[in-house]
Amino acid sequence: MSLTISIDAMGGDFGASVTVPAALDCLKENAALTLILVGDTQVLAPLVAQAQSLYGNRLQIQHASQRVDMDESPAKALKNKKDSSMRVAINLVHEGRADACVSAGNTGALMATARFVLKMLNGIDRPAIISTLPSTYGHTYMMDLGANVDCSAEHLFQFAVMGNELVKAIDNTDSPRIGLLNIGEEDMKGNEQVKAAAKLLENSSLNYIGYVEGNSINAGNVPVDLIVCDGFVGNVSLKSIEGAAKMIGTTLKDAFSANIFTKLAALMAYPVLKRFKQRIDPRLHNGASFLGLRGLVIKSHGGADVLAFKTAIKLAEVEVRHNVIQKITQQVEATLAQRTLSS
Amino acid sequence: MSLTISIDAMGGDFGASVTVPAALDCLKENAALTLILVGDTQVLAPLVAQAQSLYGNRLQIQHASQRVDMDESPAKALKNKKDSSMRVAINLVHEGRADACVSAGNTGALMATARFVLKMLNGIDRPAIISTLPSTYGHTYMMDLGANVDCSAEHLFQFAVMGNELVKAIDNTDSPRIGLLNIGEEDMKGNEQVKAAAKLLENSSLNYIGYVEGNSINAGNVPVDLIVCDGFVGNVSLKSIEGAAKMIGTTLKDAFSANIFTKLAALMAYPVLKRFKQRIDPRLHNGASFLGLRGLVIKSHGGADVLAFKTAIKLAEVEVRHNVIQKITQQVEATLAQRTLSS
Repeated sequence: MSLTISIDAMGGDFGASVTVPAALDCLKENAALTLILVGDTQVLAPLVAQAQSLYGNRLQIQHASQRVDMDESPAKALKNKKDSSMRVAINLVHEGRADACVSAGNTGALMATARFVLKMLNGIDRPAIISTLPSTYGHTYMMDLGANVDCSAEHLFQFAVMGNELVKAIDNTDSPRIGLLNIGEEDMKGNEQVKAAAKLLENSSLNYIGYVEGNSINAGNVPVDLIVCDGFVGNVSLKSIEGAAKMIGTTLKDAFSANIFTKLAALMAYPVLKRFKQRIDPRLHNGASFLGLRGLVIKSHGGADVLAFKTAIKLAEVEVRHNVIQKITQQVEATLAQRTLSS
Repeated sequence: MSLTISIDAMGGDFGASVTVPAALDCLKENAALTLILVGDTQVLAPLVAQAQSLYGNRLQIQHASQRVDMDESPAKALKNKKDSSMRVAINLVHEGRADACVSAGNTGALMATARFVLKMLNGIDRPAIISTLPSTYGHTYMMDLGANVDCSAEHLFQFAVMGNELVKAIDNTDSPRIGLLNIGEEDMKGNEQVKAAAKLLENSSLNYIGYVEGNSINAGNVPVDLIVCDGFVGNVSLKSIEGAAKMIGTTLKDAFSANIFTKLAALMAYPVLKRFKQRIDPRLHNGASFLGLRGLVIKSHGGADVLAFKTAIKLAEVEVRHNVIQKITQQVEATLAQRTLSS
C-alpha cells in the first residue's frame, strides 16, 4: 500500500534543518512512502537535490511562501498566513493529495488551521490531542493534551470514544481499558464534569475501568490503555512529567560527574546508563494526533530534533496504514448516533 | 523555645508502628520538643513505656477510643468519630495544648475535621494544601494540592497570599517568586479563572512572575518559589510526578539488574546510585500544610514510613518555630482588608 504524507517543512524551532533530514531518513526506511515537503522552494530545493535523484517522485516539494511563527496567535495565522507551509500542508490532506500531515509548528495555529480547513466530524464538538507516554506496562495513551481548556462531561465522553478507536486500530486490541483522570479513586471525589463523564462512560459499551490518578499515567497499580482528561489538566500533567524526568536526569548526571571516582563508575556503567536513557527517551514518544477532524494531522514537539521528528512521521505512517481516521469517523458517528437514539 | 505537637498516632496505612518510632526519633533529636501521642492507650502505652522513662513529660499519651478509616467519608468521620485519634489531636491544637498537629490519616476527613474544629481565618473562603517538591533550583512550593477541585480567581489569589507568607517565614526570603500554573506562558492561553487570577496577582504587592507550565515544578527555565493552581490540577500534577519518578526508578533498576555485567556495573556505581536516590527521595519532602485555618495541621502521606513521618513532624516543628500560622493570620487579614478597601 502506498502512502503519502505532507510535511510542514518550515515548522518547529529548527525548521528545515530538522524536518528535511528526518524526512529523508523515513524515505530510506519505507519504500512505500511518498513525502511532500511544504515550504520555501529556495530553501528546500538545495537540501534535497541529491536525494531527489535517489527517490524520484517519492520526494516532492510544494512551494509555500509564508511561515507561521512559533508564538503567532492562531487567529492571526489563520487570517494572514494563507500561503504558510502549515496551511498548504493541511490543504494537501483536504484535497486528498496527502493521507496525513505532520507539523512541528505552533500548536494553537495548527489546531485552528486544521479545524478550519479539514472541518470536524459529525457529532464531535471539539478536536482533541492524543499521544502516548511511556509506562511500566509499555505505554499509555492520554487525551486531551491541551486543545480544550474547559470540557463538559459530553466532551470528555467524546474524547473517550475517539481515543478508543485510535488505540484499537494502532495497538490491535479489541477493548482498550479506559480510565478517567481524577484526584482520587473513590466515587465521591472529583469535579462535576468528571463525575458526570463517569456516568456516561459507565453506561456506554466502552471498557471503562473507573477513575485513575496522576501516577497511573506512568506507573499505576493497574494497567490502563487510555486516560481521558480535559486539556488543561492533561497538558499540565504531561509537562509536569517532562519536568520530573528532566530533573531526575540532571540529578543522575550530577551524581556521576561529582568526582574522579564517580566518573570512573559512570564509565563502568556506561552501557547500562545508555540503555536506560534509550528506554525513557522522550523523542521516541514524539508525535500527537489531532482527533475529531476529517483528516489526519500529527503535531510534533516544536523543539524536536531529527530523531524526534522522524518518530512523528512514523506515527503518521502507522495511523494511515491502520486507517485510523476512517475507523474513527465510522465508529464515532455510529456510537454517537446510537447514544442519541437511546437517550 | 519549647514547642508541643500532637500526633494522630493511629492514622495512616501503618498506624502506631510508624508514628511511634518516628515520634521517638524526633524527641531524641530536639530537646525542646514535646509530643502528645493521640490514640488507644492500650496500643500506645506498651510501645512507649521505655521511652517515657527517658523523656518524662516530653512524651505524653492522650487517649482516643476511635480511629478514622483511610477510606471513610469525611462527613461520616465528622459525625460518628468524635473521639477519633485525628479529632482529639486537632482538639489539642484548638485548646492551645498543642502548637500543631500531624496526621497521616485520610486527607478528606482531616481537612473536614480541621476546618470544623479550628475554623477558617477571616477573609479566607477555603483551606488549601501546600507542600514542597524537589526542583533543580532546590525546591518549589505548590498549592493547592487537592483540597479544592474547583477554584475561582479569588480563591487562587487567596492561595497565593497565604502561600507567600508561609514561604517567607520558612525560607527566610522577603519576596517569594509566585507563578500561576497554566498550559502556556502566553497571556492568551488558559482558562477563565486562571486569566482572572493573573489580573488579581498583577495588581497586588506580591512578587508575581507570570504563568508557569507543568515542567516548572521540578525543572523550569526560571526559578519560581511558589506555584499556585486549583486542587484538581495540583493533585493530578503531583501524582503524575510521583508516577514518573517511580517509572524512571524502576527502569533504572531493571537496567542495572539485566545480567551479570550490569550487576557488576551496579556494584561499582553503588555509592553514586545511593547518593542519587537520597537526593530525590520523596520521603524527604513528606508533609503538607493546611493553610487558611486558625491552627496548624500537617498532613503526612498515608503510606509514610518512619523516615517520611519524621519529615512531616519536623516540618511541623519548623512551622511552629517560625510562627507561620500567626504570620499568615496577620498578613492575610491585612492584605485582604486592604484589597477590600481599595476595590
